[in-house]
Amino acid sequence: MPARQTATVSGPVLIIGAGLLGASVGLGLAVQGVRTWVSDISPTTEAVAADIGAGRSLARFVREEGEAAARERVDPQLIVVATPPDVAAATVIRCLREYPGASVVDIASVKAPILAEVEASGADVSRYLGTHPMSGREKSGPVAARGELFTSRPWVICEHDAVAPETVRLAHGLATDLGSIVTYLDVEEHDAAVALVSHVPQVMSSLLASRLRETPLEALGLAGQGLRDTTRIAGSEPGLWVQILSANARPVVETLYGVRADLDRLIGTLEAPTADGARLDIAQLMSEGNAGVARIPGKHGGAPKAFSELTILVDDTPGQIARLLTEIGEIGVNIEDLRMEHSPGQPVGMVEVAVVPTAHDRLVDELDARGWKIVK
Amino acid sequence: MPARQTATVSGPVLIIGAGLLGASVGLGLAVQGVRTWVSDISPTTEAVAADIGAGRSLARFVREEGEAAARERVDPQLIVVATPPDVAAATVIRCLREYPGASVVDIASVKAPILAEVEASGADVSRYLGTHPMSGREKSGPVAARGELFTSRPWVICEHDAVAPETVRLAHGLATDLGSIVTYLDVEEHDAAVALVSHVPQVMSSLLASRLRETPLEALGLAGQGLRDTTRIAGSEPGLWVQILSANARPVVETLYGVRADLDRLIGTLEAPTADGARLDIAQLMSEGNAGVARIPGKHGGAPKAFSELTILVDDTPGQIARLLTEIGEIGVNIEDLRMEHSPGQPVGMVEVAVVPTAHDRLVDELDARGWKIVK
Repeated sequence: MPARQTATVSGPVLIIGAGLLGASVGLGLAVQGVRTWVSDISPTTEAVAADIGAGRSLARFVREEGEAAARERVDPQLIVVATPPDVAAATVIRCLREYPGASVVDIASVKAPILAEVEASGADVSRYLGTHPMSGREKSGPVAARGELFTSRPWVICEHDAVAPETVRLAHGLATDLGSIVTYLDVEEHDAAVALVSHVPQVMSSLLASRLRETPLEALGLAGQGLRDTTRIAGSEPGLWVQILSANARPVVETLYGVRADLDRLIGTLEAPTADGARLDIAQLMSEGNAGVARIPGKHGGAPKAFSELTILVDDTPGQIARLLTEIGEIGVNIEDLRMEHSPGQPVGMVEVAVVPTAHDRLVDELDARGWKIVK
Repeated sequence: MPARQTATVSGPVLIIGAGLLGASVGLGLAVQGVRTWVSDISPTTEAVAADIGAGRSLARFVREEGEAAARERVDPQLIVVATPPDVAAATVIRCLREYPGASVVDIASVKAPILAEVEASGADVSRYLGTHPMSGREKSGPVAARGELFTSRPWVICEHDAVAPETVRLAHGLATDLGSIVTYLDVEEHDAAVALVSHVPQVMSSLLASRLRETPLEALGLAGQGLRDTTRIAGSEPGLWVQILSANARPVVETLYGVRADLDRLIGTLEAPTADGARLDIAQLMSEGNAGVARIPGKHGGAPKAFSELTILVDDTPGQIARLLTEIGEIGVNIEDLRMEHSPGQPVGMVEVAVVPTAHDRLVDELDARGWKIVK
């Protein structure tokens, strides 16, 4: 979290939509001393967000002061629209009209349709800017909100021709005040990018997981980490994804055309697996997958293979993993990545640790000398 | 590792194919005092496997003793065929003929074609049994071998009508002596099961990762844990997967027909996302994914949602994660699952911890009181 003296947003900030993301924005700003207001179509959500400290309840203030007086006294510098995507554009347009002195940003995960709708409305688009914080949300609702939700995460800002410098300054300040790393893309670039890195992976995971509905349980008992990893996000909330996929249908479907062409080719190959060239076809698909995954940046911006991995066997008792990591710390090696593998049916765990390659052999030797079982 | 007095395989055991899996079998048996021999078509691989203690080199013994004398003196109780899948059947048939007193098991990842080829050969199929240890292998070669590779992992045994009880006893003993959990399936059940839990996930991950080849790097900079998880296994070795997908083409393609039907339906829906019923179609796909992923057994056999998760922010300095886990141990909560999330461009990590739901709130409170930042 940056120190307050470097912050940009001075407030007041009005947050519309007080779910996980909106309430997290409010909490993150409020702890920096910014005056925040929260508003939600659900009175309960708004009250919970206010109770946890995300901001004062706008509805209560309106009840106490009357609508016109309240609006004048709230007088937001910045409005953050954190509603579900399908009502984001309408909410932005209403805010631009109700608060002529405020800049308005939204944080929905699809950007081109919202900008188009705001432009078509005739509202003052110079005070509007679309943004998208790339923060996880496996839980929802204000109770799950945390001011640190955006720390170290990318936050995309989608500039457009008509935007005013003050609105860009505030949008950038909002993201950096909350600890995010800002990336500038235009709305089409953004929507194509999230189609590839977020929406199509969601579709593929759901398509795969869907095949497991009729699988015999004894087959599922053979599931390893590969199946768990590829299907984890298939557990996401359908309601939100219906809105996202509908709103970003064109970029998603254009990528899916490529998937379908490759899938059709593979199905044809596997229908005649002994035909000439069949093995080459399969090898090509696999190699293309290798080439694609190698392009994903790693933790410190490097390729994923920048670290060496080792897997250590641990008893499934409290304190074992802590003891292992304490000893790795004593050995003086920094852990770059860490995961624990599931062990079906037995009380033994495997901890996979990634370290810089130069530390790998020494770590293996020292852990071995201390009696740890290195599996691979 | 079970104590030696409970072990079944007394040896000698001859291991053909001394890569990661074969050498790991040798190491795991050798440390229990079983006499093991290793043989590989690559003299270097065979020598390395012998050097690391997986077994005596059969080629060297044959050079010293002559072929017939060596074969007589080796006299294996059990032969483990750990060659690449495309030569497994031919190797099994040759072993059944050369060693008439031995039981022969293979450990290739596709089972029906091998049994069919052994049956068709006229060799003594009563001494053959197909098996499949479900152990990870992101690395290859005997240098990566570990005797504990099979610990707590499923090991499938595929009985057939003609198999002798002694061969079943030895195959079962091999798996349990190495610490695996045995599952019995027939060859068709096995091949259908691994198509679903292993081969189709590999295909989907490769199809998805392949789309990333042309992605602008700034888009890839937005990648989160979802993309990393869904594409991780796309980094697998193409050579091995060409053999696996070719050998198991029929069960894989039958599952892919279902994927294609769902994909076609989704593409149609996304081509007209505002049509009647479009949102319902998307919701249905997402819900089917939810239903499928919920059926994957968790660590202790429960559903994945049996644990509550929380994410804690840690500095990326040595000892931080150890300190966190030590404190969780002090609080008295057992960690059921653990992973570290990547943080693009900043030296801050997020550790995701799964605990039993009854411990969740107490852990959050206690960690909060100790100054840890809980992100969600």
